[in-house]
Amino acid sequence: MIVVMKLGSTSEQVEHVVKLVREMGLKDHVIVGEERTVVACIGNERFKEKGTFETLDGVDKVVPILAPYKMASREVKQERSVIPLGNGTAIGGKKIGVIAGPCSVESKQQIVEMAHAIKAAGAVGLRGGAFKPRTNPYSFQGMGEEGLKCLAAARDATGLAIVTEVMSIDQVDLVCAYADVLQIGARNMQNFNLLSRVGETTKTVLLKRGMSATMEEFLLAAEYVMARGNTNVILCERGIRTFEDYVRNTLPLAIVPALQRATHLPVVVDPSHGTGKNYLVEPMCRASVAAGCDGLIVETHADPEHAMTDGAQSLTPEQFEKMMASTRRIALAVDREM
Amino acid sequence: MIVVMKLGSTSEQVEHVVKLVREMGLKDHVIVGEERTVVACIGNERFKEKGTFETLDGVDKVVPILAPYKMASREVKQERSVIPLGNGTAIGGKKIGVIAGPCSVESKQQIVEMAHAIKAAGAVGLRGGAFKPRTNPYSFQGMGEEGLKCLAAARDATGLAIVTEVMSIDQVDLVCAYADVLQIGARNMQNFNLLSRVGETTKTVLLKRGMSATMEEFLLAAEYVMARGNTNVILCERGIRTFEDYVRNTLPLAIVPALQRATHLPVVVDPSHGTGKNYLVEPMCRASVAAGCDGLIVETHADPEHAMTDGAQSLTPEQFEKMMASTRRIALAVDREM
Amino acid sequence: MIVVMKLGSTSEQVEHVVKLVREMGLKDHVIVGEERTVVACIGNERFKEKGTFETLDGVDKVVPILAPYKMASREVKQERSVIPLGNGTAIGGKKIGVIAGPCSVESKQQIVEMAHAIKAAGAVGLRGGAFKPRTNPYSFQGMGEEGLKCLAAARDATGLAIVTEVMSIDQVDLVCAYADVLQIGARNMQNFNLLSRVGETTKTVLLKRGMSATMEEFLLAAEYVMARGNTNVILCERGIRTFEDYVRNTLPLAIVPALQRATHLPVVVDPSHGTGKNYLVEPMCRASVAAGCDGLIVETHADPEHAMTDGAQSLTPEQFEKMMASTRRIALAVDREM
Amino acid sequence: MIVVMKLGSTSEQVEHVVKLVREMGLKDHVIVGEERTVVACIGNERFKEKGTFETLDGVDKVVPILAPYKMASREVKQERSVIPLGNGTAIGGKKIGVIAGPCSVESKQQIVEMAHAIKAAGAVGLRGGAFKPRTNPYSFQGMGEEGLKCLAAARDATGLAIVTEVMSIDQVDLVCAYADVLQIGARNMQNFNLLSRVGETTKTVLLKRGMSATMEEFLLAAEYVMARGNTNVILCERGIRTFEDYVRNTLPLAIVPALQRATHLPVVVDPSHGTGKNYLVEPMCRASVAAGCDGLIVETHADPEHAMTDGAQSLTPEQFEKMMASTRRIALAVDREM
Repeated sequence: MIVVMKLGSTSEQVEHVVKLVREMGLKDHVIVGEERTVVACIGNERFKEKGTFETLDGVDKVVPILAPYKMASREVKQERSVIPLGNGTAIGGKKIGVIAGPCSVESKQQIVEMAHAIKAAGAVGLRGGAFKPRTNPYSFQGMGEEGLKCLAAARDATGLAIVTEVMSIDQVDLVCAYADVLQIGARNMQNFNLLSRVGETTKTVLLKRGMSATMEEFLLAAEYVMARGNTNVILCERGIRTFEDYVRNTLPLAIVPALQRATHLPVVVDPSHGTGKNYLVEPMCRASVAAGCDGLIVETHADPEHAMTDGAQSLTPEQFEKMMASTRRIALAVDREM
Repeated sequence: MIVVMKLGSTSEQVEHVVKLVREMGLKDHVIVGEERTVVACIGNERFKEKGTFETLDGVDKVVPILAPYKMASREVKQERSVIPLGNGTAIGGKKIGVIAGPCSVESKQQIVEMAHAIKAAGAVGLRGGAFKPRTNPYSFQGMGEEGLKCLAAARDATGLAIVTEVMSIDQVDLVCAYADVLQIGARNMQNFNLLSRVGETTKTVLLKRGMSATMEEFLLAAEYVMARGNTNVILCERGIRTFEDYVRNTLPLAIVPALQRATHLPVVVDPSHGTGKNYLVEPMCRASVAAGCDGLIVETHADPEHAMTDGAQSLTPEQFEKMMASTRRIALAVDREM
Repeated sequence: MIVVMKLGSTSEQVEHVVKLVREMGLKDHVIVGEERTVVACIGNERFKEKGTFETLDGVDKVVPILAPYKMASREVKQERSVIPLGNGTAIGGKKIGVIAGPCSVESKQQIVEMAHAIKAAGAVGLRGGAFKPRTNPYSFQGMGEEGLKCLAAARDATGLAIVTEVMSIDQVDLVCAYADVLQIGARNMQNFNLLSRVGETTKTVLLKRGMSATMEEFLLAAEYVMARGNTNVILCERGIRTFEDYVRNTLPLAIVPALQRATHLPVVVDPSHGTGKNYLVEPMCRASVAAGCDGLIVETHADPEHAMTDGAQSLTPEQFEKMMASTRRIALAVDREM
Repeated sequence: MIVVMKLGSTSEQVEHVVKLVREMGLKDHVIVGEERTVVACIGNERFKEKGTFETLDGVDKVVPILAPYKMASREVKQERSVIPLGNGTAIGGKKIGVIAGPCSVESKQQIVEMAHAIKAAGAVGLRGGAFKPRTNPYSFQGMGEEGLKCLAAARDATGLAIVTEVMSIDQVDLVCAYADVLQIGARNMQNFNLLSRVGETTKTVLLKRGMSATMEEFLLAAEYVMARGNTNVILCERGIRTFEDYVRNTLPLAIVPALQRATHLPVVVDPSHGTGKNYLVEPMCRASVAAGCDGLIVETHADPEHAMTDGAQSLTPEQFEKMMASTRRIALAVDREM
């Protein structure tokens, strides 16, 4: 942590900063520049409140030096993690794992048929919401446990790993009983109690980035899960909120290589939520793989115009198959498989 | 809902839209313009999926007409709501209610002393976190029930209403046992299970706006609480995330009059989180009141440089008293009391 | 400037950084921390490229220390500047200066009548566009020199200072011949040739903040004007572009006290563009003054529903008079005049 | 244009809207819904002020229907445009055109050597700034005409098309005398006088998106150029400003397929400015091509640590060659050449 003093700060003010640095158990190092003085603080600052200094007289700003996450950091673990999906497949290796399925589970027949279709096209996981986080309290909220049973039936029929969202701590045991991978939605990325709770399970966690989360906050959310003992975390970029209005969200693909520099955890991309428009999904699948992602998660629906949720961003099975074919060519062009 | 067809859409495409509109139980109204055709859909669209239409061939875009919230809407209730704080005071009337206190409860002595200080300066409520949502899993997480007891002691000593955050559904009963007002934090604004759960209590809910929530999403979050029977909701603007870097958050005060046009619920402003810098808090308190807010929530700490959390944005009791004096002059200038 | 090395950077990498620091004419100061090494660079970094270091092997990030502007800085000039408007009035003193008028000059009669109306209500300046920056090439582009003549006639009739936009270097001489204050629009905040050109005139410059400019970029734009010799610069906040959709722009009023900490230049606020809705203008005028601004610039039109531009955000003369009355009460409550 | 009335609007208010619609020369179509009335306006609304209606009593909001641009629109020209670069090559066809070179021209030797290097690696154009838009008035501002002469020498030596920025109307003739393609920088995307002026030349224009421009504003800026007679416009995405802090800008690649749906103009991507970090450039080049772009513009420098500008985002000639090789594989995988 570097404490930058204001122009014209007094030596008393610098001394007061130094006193607080020492109180914190850090070592101080005062550097007198031509215009300003800075106090470098040496030691493990990870658990210190930098805000403490910002209020002091004579202080201009405080600059943290260390990344605040540890277990998620590449500094701690150099080799890239390969995270099992629970059905013998994994995300993070040479093969790019594709997870697909409807936004909401609507019936057993629907989900089993879709599972067969996406498996035939090369998917390794089946997504589908049984508990749905809906912006509007009057909208369809999901089938609940009945939906989980439908998903389990689809796994029995196809062997696909089941990926489904858990919205609340009181659903964790129930969802664990049916699912292979626990999805934490974007709106819950900083639901810290939920993060801690899934960190106590043995299920792989697919963690979606919050729509206005910084990369550091995203990695700290992963750290919450890992700090409880569950290191099987997959990061998922699903678009951020910006001023852009031709898309539902802005999909910032540079985060894929940026995350791979910062963390050993694998990164998947969700171009369905990441754009909100089905005609943008296939090009963004290709772009995500070209950027180096480890997996994709894509919404599919056999009859988008009658989907209960998210029809506008769903691919039909035929569109999904076409996307897989064109994206597989990209995967080969970056020496991956799909 | 208005469905706008593309230039050159065919009559078959328009007919298909009309068929789906009727399937939904809405009435259609086709308008053929010089360049484009639009299909106006008449009826209660509030529970319909507009995405359905967006995927159809020949459709350019879909424009919703009705606001999706009802109970929170001013169209349903014209007169402004006055929401009780539980200690005989209220937010929403002529008097601007000020809630103050430390970010975190740190000890009984700390919180009782602070309660006396802010009461003397004119506050009606005491805030303080016993359960703390922290971005970093290794940071101080709050005192828990012990902290709630300290808050209760402060209420006994001063009569101030206790406002404290509930982060998770399993804390709701516990927090209700001690607090007067349940605060839902910005990161939980779309934790729908938590919203529904506090909607089943009889405590007033202080709902903070998510840092990238639209005004509509904010009101729908309030609607979640109200739809469960608890209509005592206070809205709280606490700053949004933008590209601005001289502040922790951007405080968009135009939302105060905009909300007052859209909803009957009272609006309070949190200039502490809304700026993140203690030297900006007093001017933003004044500006919030001038913009017409119904209350303020302000972080205070007797010794900011040793605060366990949020020292950088806390006012000392002396600074708080000064803020109250200067802001009270603004309140009088807009024919309010404080 | 502080160069932060990566964890595990080698001593050769640190030495290479040190070599480049010295090549730049700065002094180096190497601090070896528990986890990382940082190289503090001492000297005037204002004209150095920090990017140089960011590409080096072993470097994690570079943190600048000094603000890059000088003449605009409060470190250089402590006392607040009072900037003349050219008609004997000024912005920056105890009196809050209000500038008002239509978005576009539409006729001589229109502008003279409006000048009388706003003067009667207490304005010190008349705004009106003769050259209009329009997003759409097919929209009304302004009356040009004819519009400038109308403005001059309004000054002759009322004594108000004339504030009008100059969009291009080839208009500067012409606009200077008629106007008292040259307005640089938000879209031209980083039109560096135009900034330099108006910096060579003797007219006061009203500089609008770009809709996605940082505070530092805003002050550097002012520095462009000042560096050419013209120090009569007034800063104008007019709203920024964010995800918010209930307003045309988000008006971030905390920039008023933040600017006053960073610069000696006066700050005016434009709540018309800052919100885009006429029913939000009066509350935001009050809030701006409560936040401490030195002036307001407000769009007015006698017949908004027939305005050629910006009718939606214009006040009628009656609404303007009402705004002046309620905002004047706020001015008195912060010990200012209006 | 659809005018949506408020709940409870009176028939007089609706009639007033209808009267204004007719005054504008549009046809009205009143639709009475269950909760609200809407007035559909039929005719060419492109030059009408929708703001007119927003101020009226009883009006809730106004929704435009027609895109405001024409010549840039795909509705007007279905087939994709192929835009010549002036040296026999073009952007917009099967071959993805790559433009590369340093941020600033620093010397004749530098630019000629770089031209040879990038040509050998497959580039079709050479970029390099002679006039530099610098945020800081004290930074290096470019070599001016001397720099243009260096660029011309590089063209003579290699046959590459010269792409260079023109910042101001008084530079247009000079830059036209040396360059093949006029670049309009992001900060000038709404410098309407400059857009109009380059629209009067016969040179191809490379138009960069402003850092907070909507897609519609971007296309309207192209329309400004085209409306003056110059239809040779290439659109360039170079990143937008968001809250993200691990990049200089957020690169929103979904705009590539979205633009291709809205316009016939070709789209190139600038991953150098679009990320600001050289280690992100190669993955984003690959992703841009996978998303379907028609060209790339990439900053290169032989000695980034001594570059006068933008060293942090420049590739060395070796890194450029490696990028070309890996991106060419992506181009083949989407049936393009490079």
